[in-house]
Amino acid sequence: MTSLPRVRIGMIGYGGMGKAHSYAYRALNTLRKLPVEPELHIISGRHQAGVEKAAAAYGFARSTADWRKIVESPDVDIVDICTPPGTHAEIAAAAAAHGKAVISEKPLATSYEEGRMALEAVRKAGVLNAVGFNYRKLPAVSLMKRMIDDGKVGKIQHWRAIWMSDEFIDPNIPFDWRFERKMGGTTIADLGAHLIDMAQWMVGDIAEVSAQSETFVRERTDPAKPGGTRKVEIDDASSALVRFSNGARGIMEMTRSCVRRPCDFTVEVNGTLGTLHFDYARLNELLYGDGSDAVELYGMRRIRAEHISHPYAANWWAIGQGVGYGSSFVNHFGDLLEKWPQGPWDPDFAQGLKVQAVCDAMEQSAAGRQWVSVASIGN
Amino acid sequence: MTSLPRVRIGMIGYGGMGKAHSYAYRALNTLRKLPVEPELHIISGRHQAGVEKAAAAYGFARSTADWRKIVESPDVDIVDICTPPGTHAEIAAAAAAHGKAVISEKPLATSYEEGRMALEAVRKAGVLNAVGFNYRKLPAVSLMKRMIDDGKVGKIQHWRAIWMSDEFIDPNIPFDWRFERKMGGTTIADLGAHLIDMAQWMVGDIAEVSAQSETFVRERTDPAKPGGTRKVEIDDASSALVRFSNGARGIMEMTRSCVRRPCDFTVEVNGTLGTLHFDYARLNELLYGDGSDAVELYGMRRIRAEHISHPYAANWWAIGQGVGYGSSFVNHFGDLLEKWPQGPWDPDFAQGLKVQAVCDAMEQSAAGRQWVSVASIGN
Amino acid sequence: MTSLPRVRIGMIGYGGMGKAHSYAYRALNTLRKLPVEPELHIISGRHQAGVEKAAAAYGFARSTADWRKIVESPDVDIVDICTPPGTHAEIAAAAAAHGKAVISEKPLATSYEEGRMALEAVRKAGVLNAVGFNYRKLPAVSLMKRMIDDGKVGKIQHWRAIWMSDEFIDPNIPFDWRFERKMGGTTIADLGAHLIDMAQWMVGDIAEVSAQSETFVRERTDPAKPGGTRKVEIDDASSALVRFSNGARGIMEMTRSCVRRPCDFTVEVNGTLGTLHFDYARLNELLYGDGSDAVELYGMRRIRAEHISHPYAANWWAIGQGVGYGSSFVNHFGDLLEKWPQGPWDPDFAQGLKVQAVCDAMEQSAAGRQWVSVASIGN
Amino acid sequence: MTSLPRVRIGMIGYGGMGKAHSYAYRALNTLRKLPVEPELHIISGRHQAGVEKAAAAYGFARSTADWRKIVESPDVDIVDICTPPGTHAEIAAAAAAHGKAVISEKPLATSYEEGRMALEAVRKAGVLNAVGFNYRKLPAVSLMKRMIDDGKVGKIQHWRAIWMSDEFIDPNIPFDWRFERKMGGTTIADLGAHLIDMAQWMVGDIAEVSAQSETFVRERTDPAKPGGTRKVEIDDASSALVRFSNGARGIMEMTRSCVRRPCDFTVEVNGTLGTLHFDYARLNELLYGDGSDAVELYGMRRIRAEHISHPYAANWWAIGQGVGYGSSFVNHFGDLLEKWPQGPWDPDFAQGLKVQAVCDAMEQSAAGRQWVSVASIGN
Repeated sequence: MTSLPRVRIGMIGYGGMGKAHSYAYRALNTLRKLPVEPELHIISGRHQAGVEKAAAAYGFARSTADWRKIVESPDVDIVDICTPPGTHAEIAAAAAAHGKAVISEKPLATSYEEGRMALEAVRKAGVLNAVGFNYRKLPAVSLMKRMIDDGKVGKIQHWRAIWMSDEFIDPNIPFDWRFERKMGGTTIADLGAHLIDMAQWMVGDIAEVSAQSETFVRERTDPAKPGGTRKVEIDDASSALVRFSNGARGIMEMTRSCVRRPCDFTVEVNGTLGTLHFDYARLNELLYGDGSDAVELYGMRRIRAEHISHPYAANWWAIGQGVGYGSSFVNHFGDLLEKWPQGPWDPDFAQGLKVQAVCDAMEQSAAGRQWVSVASIGN
Repeated sequence: MTSLPRVRIGMIGYGGMGKAHSYAYRALNTLRKLPVEPELHIISGRHQAGVEKAAAAYGFARSTADWRKIVESPDVDIVDICTPPGTHAEIAAAAAAHGKAVISEKPLATSYEEGRMALEAVRKAGVLNAVGFNYRKLPAVSLMKRMIDDGKVGKIQHWRAIWMSDEFIDPNIPFDWRFERKMGGTTIADLGAHLIDMAQWMVGDIAEVSAQSETFVRERTDPAKPGGTRKVEIDDASSALVRFSNGARGIMEMTRSCVRRPCDFTVEVNGTLGTLHFDYARLNELLYGDGSDAVELYGMRRIRAEHISHPYAANWWAIGQGVGYGSSFVNHFGDLLEKWPQGPWDPDFAQGLKVQAVCDAMEQSAAGRQWVSVASIGN
Repeated sequence: MTSLPRVRIGMIGYGGMGKAHSYAYRALNTLRKLPVEPELHIISGRHQAGVEKAAAAYGFARSTADWRKIVESPDVDIVDICTPPGTHAEIAAAAAAHGKAVISEKPLATSYEEGRMALEAVRKAGVLNAVGFNYRKLPAVSLMKRMIDDGKVGKIQHWRAIWMSDEFIDPNIPFDWRFERKMGGTTIADLGAHLIDMAQWMVGDIAEVSAQSETFVRERTDPAKPGGTRKVEIDDASSALVRFSNGARGIMEMTRSCVRRPCDFTVEVNGTLGTLHFDYARLNELLYGDGSDAVELYGMRRIRAEHISHPYAANWWAIGQGVGYGSSFVNHFGDLLEKWPQGPWDPDFAQGLKVQAVCDAMEQSAAGRQWVSVASIGN
Repeated sequence: MTSLPRVRIGMIGYGGMGKAHSYAYRALNTLRKLPVEPELHIISGRHQAGVEKAAAAYGFARSTADWRKIVESPDVDIVDICTPPGTHAEIAAAAAAHGKAVISEKPLATSYEEGRMALEAVRKAGVLNAVGFNYRKLPAVSLMKRMIDDGKVGKIQHWRAIWMSDEFIDPNIPFDWRFERKMGGTTIADLGAHLIDMAQWMVGDIAEVSAQSETFVRERTDPAKPGGTRKVEIDDASSALVRFSNGARGIMEMTRSCVRRPCDFTVEVNGTLGTLHFDYARLNELLYGDGSDAVELYGMRRIRAEHISHPYAANWWAIGQGVGYGSSFVNHFGDLLEKWPQGPWDPDFAQGLKVQAVCDAMEQSAAGRQWVSVASIGN
């Protein structure tokens, strides 16, 4: 521990996200000069034994099975929500009500209405708030955004984002909360929220969508009913056509039904002057096709997004060494704590809600088999 | 020339397709044992000087500026149509009426109605007929189809096909026939016809579509009117959601507005048991994710689609050497001439028309902003 | 056939090389404007039935089982030698003695002495002569050479060339002429000759080498002696350190013992200003690292070596379509026939002999376990 | 901080390695269940201000400008040496003499003699000792080793390892300790030590080598002498032929003179049954060519080395997310602390010395222009 002022973290949820966040808090100050240092103060989880084990593993001083203890604790500065989507908004609102800064994993909520409630809560309380769109914080993705802002691709005409995983491909996976609409949200929201966020961040607001959804495995064995099955309440896979307010066109796909696609997403923008392409499986690279290049060099550059001149690269290793998934959290929390306690934080709940509006529009479009205007959501 | 019986080719059109087809006819018999040998008998084109030059270059014995001379000639066995899309159907019908076998470049027509007329003509005449879906004949694409038929991916759930080119990205390209709806058809048809054909060939019939289209460069300088411009009549770029009759879901995109994307298309299918991925920029490879592989080998195989056991590979070079675009035509014409004169030929006009129905459905969907049933086309 | 003057080809040998050469002669004029057209006049092979079948397949008008008939024929203009290495020099010398232009597949010979005899024969006869270093003629390899000559990499410091195949990995392959030193030459010569040629063409003369060789499968079953085996007389695999006369340093490896490496070679040069990398498995691409690029773009370009501005690209297809192995022969013979009958031809026997000198130096070095000066070969 | 027993780290040196090691110590326990937790007790460096800043950044409680204070401190359990190579052995010996466990960055020393002294010191003191061959601890490299041990490639015939960086390509980089033979060692040792270690770990002992070295930039400006230059004492680039005791053959290259090659190394083994290929630029992947695969699948698998069944993968993220360079240190220190305080540690100084013997053999071979037996080093 350094001699910096402490910011006390109260973490709610201790699964995969809890582990990744804890890692980031611990590694953070070695990699980045910050005004404060996070202290892993307390962690909660529904299962007493599990949360105690996690507290020990992640380095939290205390644990509790009651998340309300955390939001109420005078010793907690930031509440970091790592629970299933269906609980994000409620916890966020409670934390805000107690004056805590809030970091919520994505999606902000499982519906626009829920998300709006959470946004109103943090606004009313005047607390700092952030949503875990961590992929923005990968060096290559961040570079992609910066190059777009710098005009490298000109006026954007195309956005293309596809996320393939195999999370649900096995029909023998029993029903759990991920298949429950109220708790897990949709595949649109789980995977798509990241893509929608990157789209709106890089290109601009999405105006309308036409979507389709499919549930390939419609029933799954119900652990609560031996021999019984339960109806899956969400989409295994969805895809959408997208029109942006500025006239750009896009396609998006998010599916958890692709064999040997562990967590592969690609994002491409094509503008009047250039093309940028990111492939998460090669996360330290960014492909760049520069239309003003000599035609003799026709092709794309594979930018090693690790040069010291690139976003976040100076905080990590010498070029060529590469970072991984974990870096996205380190960079994200670094950005947040750098602005502690004044803020602003970015991306915040307002942006999370804009993503939720598009998720809801896609869900409605798929159900109604028609184009849906994003502006119509919540009205 | 070998001592095989000759099949006399009458080629109509001498542009890029004419060159590729001529190359294939000349190289064909060296690479493949066939019952006949093509003879480059006569070629036509609108410009006398141009067609004479082409005849000399491509090795045709005769040339003419009047395509009707070819379809009427008693010395021509096969009429090979390499003209702009808007003329395909008329020429095909005329050739059929004179009892010629017909090979038409894709798309079969610029509308379902036109295509149906062409199909009826060849059916009435009882002549062999083929459409130039040459990409089917690439070794790796052909292998992809065979592996699907062999059950390697199980039941198909996803189809994903994207074609990006930069053909229209430059706003200074003047208006020409490609931008004229009646002559050039649409980008949906020009690029998408290949994708739609592969989709229906590999997955099954497409039942309905939701599409969007955009023309980014809406006016282009008019070479016919100095200082004037002309309205572009077609889409620069389109994309579509697709539902197959068997329940599989798909997305497609076809655009000629992507900087530094020369002619890049990718096709992926995901089924219950496996994934196959083809990238035209690496056309000798096929990626295969086998869900039954040991998890320790989780990942995809990069199959070198050149092993002698693969379709067409035995006709070409030793594995590792690679073939190019030209091989697709050689393989295609080899398949056709192997069946001369009995047939059947595959893919034929009936398949070409089924593709056209989807093209029309996509065009209608984009115009009407609603899902369109493919079955409704032509009714 | 066009109306161009004919150049009559007499081909000796009808195996894989015979097929590839025949393909190229047939396709050539469609792809390239030339002053002459090759005529497949006569082909020879040791087996009467085999050569007759090949003649029919490849389109030769005549065949013979006696190669001397070809070199002596007054109706042959060019003798094209596609036989095993151990016969190249003798045939070439005989053809030259009869005033024929000669194209010899690589390597020129199986020893420097033999090669020198062949060179002296063509010089004495004053006939055009060429060696089949066809990989030079791939668009991307040719572009690599041009970019080096244009100074894009500055002063070359490193050369790195590795050729991996699995041709000999199976110990059950019986003994044949490839394993016989006198007939098949060495792996150094069979695979390495291409790499050495590219090295000397791109970088400059090789001054000295230190090499190692290994024969992993030392005995193979002898088809001539049922139940018996025969000692393999050549290297399965060799590698070498190289010093160029201009001070550049290099490494080379050539092996036929690599599982699932069908015919994979890579070539890289690093100079004071840039890096160029070619991977034969992706033969339409050339990677280029430009040291003068903005550091924000640090990385390499993947040049699509198909732009119309590139060597040979204008003769083939639109960018993005790709060519294969066969294009190397078409381009090579196009270059030769373009200069018919004046010449000069390039690469010629003199260059073939310089490659042979390095092959011999590597073989001596491996045997003697010491550095060997290339200048010492033949003296 | 957890409630685990503490192991107190005394770190010597605070440059790039100091940062990476500190990161690893801090992140370690979140990712891995261990019997102890490292405490960043004290750090030293020659510059007082610099080391104080580093102590604050890395989270060390104390700092000193005198490394001897650390080796002598009763409050330090492990001395972790992150200084230039020329000081490793001396510090290690001093630490051992005070009974400390020692972790030394690679190379162990700048000569075999120095390294032997260090080894003798730790042996005499009976302290745990480790060398920082961290790349062994990357999941894909570790998997490569395990697959070799499991017989997946059969008997190894080829080893091929190439390391390219651009660290020294700029001739305007002034002279510093890296160019001084006594302090920085050689490029053979700096980059090659990793490759040699992996070679001996995966394949077996190296018996003899033939090497070449070159210094392209022979003089550099001397910061100590305004206007003056100083002779570079080491190789910019070296390469070597290698013979292993078990008969396998190898090539190695290590160079700091390659434009736009930031830190690219590749390692490939080819055995009688299979091929494995690792490319550090895509560090989460391992290519595997399985000779027993059906020929229809001829090609290589791209194993995503993140499946939970793979070494270290279970400690990190879900498959598809990827780790970076930092993971190698986390995994390494995890392996060491897991065995605290009994040991044994692996790789240890004995292995570090075996690497040093090969480094010295390469250096002698390059100087003497002859094959050098590794067994002759130190005798």
